[in-house]
Amino acid sequence: MEELRIFVDFAVPSDVLAMLQEGTKGHQLVLPQKPAASVLTKSERDPQFATVDVAFGQPDPVAIAEAGQLKWIHVSSSGIMRYDTREFRALMAQRGIVVSNSASVYNEACAAHALSFMLAQARKLPLALKTRTADGTAAWHAVRGSCRTLRGETVLIVGYGAIGKRLAELLRPFHMKVIAYRRKARGDEHVPVVTEDQLAQALANEADHIVDILPESAETRHFFDATRFATIKPGAIFYNIGRGTTVDQDALLEALRSGRIAAAWLDVTEPEPLPDDHSLWTQPNCFITPHVAGGHADEAKTLVRHFLKNLKRFVRGQSLLDRVM
Amino acid sequence: MEELRIFVDFAVPSDVLAMLQEGTKGHQLVLPQKPAASVLTKSERDPQFATVDVAFGQPDPVAIAEAGQLKWIHVSSSGIMRYDTREFRALMAQRGIVVSNSASVYNEACAAHALSFMLAQARKLPLALKTRTADGTAAWHAVRGSCRTLRGETVLIVGYGAIGKRLAELLRPFHMKVIAYRRKARGDEHVPVVTEDQLAQALANEADHIVDILPESAETRHFFDATRFATIKPGAIFYNIGRGTTVDQDALLEALRSGRIAAAWLDVTEPEPLPDDHSLWTQPNCFITPHVAGGHADEAKTLVRHFLKNLKRFVRGQSLLDRVM
Repeated sequence: MEELRIFVDFAVPSDVLAMLQEGTKGHQLVLPQKPAASVLTKSERDPQFATVDVAFGQPDPVAIAEAGQLKWIHVSSSGIMRYDTREFRALMAQRGIVVSNSASVYNEACAAHALSFMLAQARKLPLALKTRTADGTAAWHAVRGSCRTLRGETVLIVGYGAIGKRLAELLRPFHMKVIAYRRKARGDEHVPVVTEDQLAQALANEADHIVDILPESAETRHFFDATRFATIKPGAIFYNIGRGTTVDQDALLEALRSGRIAAAWLDVTEPEPLPDDHSLWTQPNCFITPHVAGGHADEAKTLVRHFLKNLKRFVRGQSLLDRVM
Repeated sequence: MEELRIFVDFAVPSDVLAMLQEGTKGHQLVLPQKPAASVLTKSERDPQFATVDVAFGQPDPVAIAEAGQLKWIHVSSSGIMRYDTREFRALMAQRGIVVSNSASVYNEACAAHALSFMLAQARKLPLALKTRTADGTAAWHAVRGSCRTLRGETVLIVGYGAIGKRLAELLRPFHMKVIAYRRKARGDEHVPVVTEDQLAQALANEADHIVDILPESAETRHFFDATRFATIKPGAIFYNIGRGTTVDQDALLEALRSGRIAAAWLDVTEPEPLPDDHSLWTQPNCFITPHVAGGHADEAKTLVRHFLKNLKRFVRGQSLLDRVM
């Protein structure tokens, strides 16, 4: 295959750049004049983009439409919300551009993050790490007695992709019931799947833990709204490591205030970060981390390694890993 | 078998008392005039104790020595530090008193608590739950970049009994290397075992995570002392869900201050709680919960259920569950 012009739109530390240069030998690496601040940030327009064959990062959809040479986009995140529209998919199909994402890079970290939320809630860590109560006091009994083990409880994973599957694996030794919600069951889930018509029943009668891993799209916007929250099993715990837009935050706040939901653990919100005066910050049963679920040591390296693996496949004409369009 | 007089020394809520009464029908339940404040607290002397056949709780070793009818003691905790002396063991053997504990009741909760510590540390929850940083800022990169997944790391479980075994099961899907330290390998561990002569090497070169689940005894007192901490792999994380006395806390503090240990997560300390002015409370990389690792919903019920299961076995002359002497 001829030399490819490969555009990488995010800032990479020097050791990762060296890896990228080594791995793309024989091709031409095109770096932006203004790199994006992170692998989640949309990059700014760059005049060089019009001439590249491959884009790795979060390229602007408008710039993509104007880049006549583009053959492959490798998105540097698991979410592809910027690109997941009917128009964009149609354009990719028409122009023959393939799109892959970095789902495999983030599965492990996101699943571990979700489980850290579930266990921190079960073991009441936010309270237990703050208290200095003595064994035998009423306050101590209140903490100790509110701790749980997860055994025998039911978790519903809403949005069952690569992260959900890995979370189900991590939960396997816990003697929990794991159920997945998916628009269409594909048969490769290894756990019972509910689809739209059974979801209300699962939320109302089964799920003690609801793990939202939905991607952002027009269809998932406010998927968890006031109606949905009003029907869930009282006392359930809600987790979001998908996208903030999938939750109507006013409805969530109301469900937390009324105690319908016992607690919420959110890695994503809308917007991010929430404004300083947002009520979810001070809601005592709401716990928020700043969109770090995918983070892990050497993230940039695993991201680049995954891209380079796909580059080899692309050059050889093989099917891409994590292809999404 | 004749009617047994069964002494239960801790305060039980009315529903659990009903369970206990139902399960001990045909025998005589003897309740103390002053019940102990918790299942971990030593009970006060009670004149009725001299006449009982069975003791369930934390009876005083001196009272036990004077109770001429006693045939069986079922300790209401996993730790048996009050009883684990050569003299006491000799007395039990001489008098033919069997002793069992409640290890099976606490395995699940203690193992889940240990894993909640490991994941909270890996996902940097104490920091991530406090910060409100925006995606792409230096502060955000610092949090996100310090998160880990546990994959590929090594955990050394020091004191490999029922809790350690359950923890190893919970860790199985994580692609970690799990090693156990035991005085003597028994062959039933399902993980590689190191004994005393290999321990220093494992601490120095292998363990990224050291989980102390040692019981309290004369031999384990300050098992983790300055010498031991000075030889562990720099940057390792230390967890204690065993007993506070197994750690020299001054040495731990020094290891935390110097950064030799990246962080410590303690469910047990010496004493409990630590005095308000103890430096471990304010050491930024030290996280303390108040001896709640064994806690779980319906703890009193599972405790009583376990005792009643053993009572049936005792009456039938079968071997007891969790027999320790």
